[in-house]
Amino acid sequence: MAGGDSYSPLTSPPLEMQFEKFRVQLEDSGTLRERIRTVVMEIESSTRLMQASLLLVHQSIPIPQVLEKANTQINVLKDLYSKLAEVVRECPGQYYRYHGDWRSETQMVASLLAFMHWLESGNLLVHTEAEESLDVLNDSDFALDLEDYLVGICFMSNEMPRYVVNQVTAGDYDCPRKVLKFLTDLHAAFRMLNLRNDFLRKKFDSMKYDLRKVEEVYYDVKIRGLATTGDSVGDQGTQKI
Amino acid sequence: MAGGDSYSPLTSPPLEMQFEKFRVQLEDSGTLRERIRTVVMEIESSTRLMQASLLLVHQSIPIPQVLEKANTQINVLKDLYSKLAEVVRECPGQYYRYHGDWRSETQMVASLLAFMHWLESGNLLVHTEAEESLDVLNDSDFALDLEDYLVGICFMSNEMPRYVVNQVTAGDYDCPRKVLKFLTDLHAAFRMLNLRNDFLRKKFDSMKYDLRKVEEVYYDVKIRGLATTGDSVGDQGTQKI
Amino acid sequence: MAGGDSYSPLTSPPLEMQFEKFRVQLEDSGTLRERIRTVVMEIESSTRLMQASLLLVHQSIPIPQVLEKANTQINVLKDLYSKLAEVVRECPGQYYRYHGDWRSETQMVASLLAFMHWLESGNLLVHTEAEESLDVLNDSDFALDLEDYLVGICFMSNEMPRYVVNQVTAGDYDCPRKVLKFLTDLHAAFRMLNLRNDFLRKKFDSMKYDLRKVEEVYYDVKIRGLATTGDSVGDQGTQKI
Amino acid sequence: MAGGDSYSPLTSPPLEMQFEKFRVQLEDSGTLRERIRTVVMEIESSTRLMQASLLLVHQSIPIPQVLEKANTQINVLKDLYSKLAEVVRECPGQYYRYHGDWRSETQMVASLLAFMHWLESGNLLVHTEAEESLDVLNDSDFALDLEDYLVGICFMSNEMPRYVVNQVTAGDYDCPRKVLKFLTDLHAAFRMLNLRNDFLRKKFDSMKYDLRKVEEVYYDVKIRGLATTGDSVGDQGTQKI
Repeated sequence: MAGGDSYSPLTSPPLEMQFEKFRVQLEDSGTLRERIRTVVMEIESSTRLMQASLLLVHQSIPIPQVLEKANTQINVLKDLYSKLAEVVRECPGQYYRYHGDWRSETQMVASLLAFMHWLESGNLLVHTEAEESLDVLNDSDFALDLEDYLVGICFMSNEMPRYVVNQVTAGDYDCPRKVLKFLTDLHAAFRMLNLRNDFLRKKFDSMKYDLRKVEEVYYDVKIRGLATTGDSVGDQGTQKI
Repeated sequence: MAGGDSYSPLTSPPLEMQFEKFRVQLEDSGTLRERIRTVVMEIESSTRLMQASLLLVHQSIPIPQVLEKANTQINVLKDLYSKLAEVVRECPGQYYRYHGDWRSETQMVASLLAFMHWLESGNLLVHTEAEESLDVLNDSDFALDLEDYLVGICFMSNEMPRYVVNQVTAGDYDCPRKVLKFLTDLHAAFRMLNLRNDFLRKKFDSMKYDLRKVEEVYYDVKIRGLATTGDSVGDQGTQKI
Repeated sequence: MAGGDSYSPLTSPPLEMQFEKFRVQLEDSGTLRERIRTVVMEIESSTRLMQASLLLVHQSIPIPQVLEKANTQINVLKDLYSKLAEVVRECPGQYYRYHGDWRSETQMVASLLAFMHWLESGNLLVHTEAEESLDVLNDSDFALDLEDYLVGICFMSNEMPRYVVNQVTAGDYDCPRKVLKFLTDLHAAFRMLNLRNDFLRKKFDSMKYDLRKVEEVYYDVKIRGLATTGDSVGDQGTQKI
Repeated sequence: MAGGDSYSPLTSPPLEMQFEKFRVQLEDSGTLRERIRTVVMEIESSTRLMQASLLLVHQSIPIPQVLEKANTQINVLKDLYSKLAEVVRECPGQYYRYHGDWRSETQMVASLLAFMHWLESGNLLVHTEAEESLDVLNDSDFALDLEDYLVGICFMSNEMPRYVVNQVTAGDYDCPRKVLKFLTDLHAAFRMLNLRNDFLRKKFDSMKYDLRKVEEVYYDVKIRGLATTGDSVGDQGTQKI
């Protein structure tokens, strides 16, 4: 059926061999995805514990105490990301092929790390610091994708209004001013970016509502003469507002 | 409000600098996408011309004549893929980051190349041959993604029923047998693959309908005693089919 | 409250006057839309009658008889489009502002005119002929938009498979060949257009299915030896198929 | 099969010529859209800078300083709209054909211009003033569409509550009264318009919420006896408010 027949259908063995090779390749890729999935599920689980610890911040537990508990998960995450990087290292140049498999979990990790850093220092966790936290700073095969980091920062911003409301409830009247300053600067910085019309853009748009909500809380404490500044307490309510 | 305040908001300069760096990175990535888009639009345009030439096969134009015209586009495509590979080469390890930007156009290219190859030889264009046609065979930065190739093969299969119908109309009663043999083997080969529940899987599922349609045409010519082969009528049905 | 107050709110009279002007403008535009809507409803009604007449073609009523009845509506449509043009003429340069209000009805009109013309002549009604039918050929204010004309042609193509099926049922075995030739040429001509990814593109994509369906009908009559060519009847069935 | 057949399929040359003409027309229109897109992207980019400058108004930066920076973009916008008008001038009477391509960006421009004008004068930027700002006042081919202008005014209204909140926070207790007067008049003026059930109607509906929010802020300052005017406290509540 081969040779002579110029129109001849496929000679079966090569076709089968060819697809046997494809089968192996697809299976390898499938196995890799399974391994990634296993690690990502652990990341997700560790993130959930970290998040649970951080939620206590809304109940006026002292920040150092909150952070101490959350910090224990950072080492867990370091290990998990080093595992993940190891898996990804096996297929050089294919980080972005599998990126979707850990993307959303990593955005959440970035968000929590940034929130913790802000609670501790009042500053923005910068991109390289976030990579350092996950021990992937100088990894040539695995990085924290810039857009994932930025989405994480937007997620952190989404937590701010709730934090401010609870802090004021607990009597910390200076919190709105600080958060407002932080968010205003952050929002202005984001505005420098020329975002495509995509997921990050949508998340950034939501930051405007966080800002507005925090402004309203600040307004509430100011109008009631509750907003202290760092200076003295006596001149509050009349001169300052 | 600055320095001493350990909770202090971001000192503006570093934040701005940080985001200025992000802005540059995002803009670089945006520019790259624009450049990819330009090449992909040319690929799409060349593919349209190739497809227009190949459509003549349904009007009983002799195959060599059809292929000659379509072949002129292969060199155009070679140039365009080498341009695309050049752009992608500028960001090593990020092929899959931008892969979605040329994916569907490349699946169509793979489909047409496979159809041309089959018209010429009656055989399946194998993956490496497809890469060779596009001059990306030994390119370490740019490859024809295996799944894109396989989706292209499914698209080619979708063209088969129409081809068979028109060939029979034009009097080629042996065509259904040959195409059926080819599609049956191809379908069997695909069945070896353990496909995830995704786009490729869906496209493969459609191949079953192509097969069924070709079987029906073969049945039509057989039941009317039209399915002769070039040889004698007696050996029909056993040896040849 | 005015003059001295540099921050002063609007002085009411001018604001009211301004909005009174806006109100008039919006109302004028609303009235115009109402008038357009009235004419378009009549167009739609006339089109429905025309369509009803043309449907008889599927019941083997002789074409001249079918066309005669449908033709009476053409004069009605001429009048209606001249009314529509008159309305649009009142707002020079705003044809495209209100275009959406008669767009889909006009696509249907173009489709029916093209189908009638094809029934009569076997040829494509060209754009200028369509404009002539509606008496808008040399109207500088009102034209048949090119994309509407092309969408109409696609709609006409959608009617072809049904027409072919019913003609074959009625014993006209030569119809599939003629329609196939027409549709193949039309499809090839459309392929020259570089359509944006929009409504027209989608409609054109559907033409492929019409073509395929007509090919299958042609295949059915050919394989059964029913397809006559223009030549002689005697050699049918054996030599030709 | 050709010539004599009165039912004859299209003779290919005229069909091809016809569609070649269509191809050119569609391509011209596509090229025009690309050129419009380029200018609109620049308008969007300039608008972003203007918006970034105006955001500083929420941080108690003195208005003249805020406006000075934002004003530099007005000249940029003038140039861009004159570029856009030039492109549109090439296809007389087709302003509304491409209108959708610059519509939303222009609504945003109108919104920012109106906000700046209000910051400066406390008055509504009227339609002709907005056209003057963009140098399209006496352009017979390009205008600021009335509905786009009105949508822009609604967008401006959406910014008012935030502005009032931040002004009160910064100690300007007279701001709510002024803004409330302005918004109340504006809302009443809009109510004169008989809006169809469309986008503008929806945007206008949102103005009611802005009004309510500003009323609440005014209530807050009044009930706390903060709503003083510059004069004496005694005449408060009757003459001034």
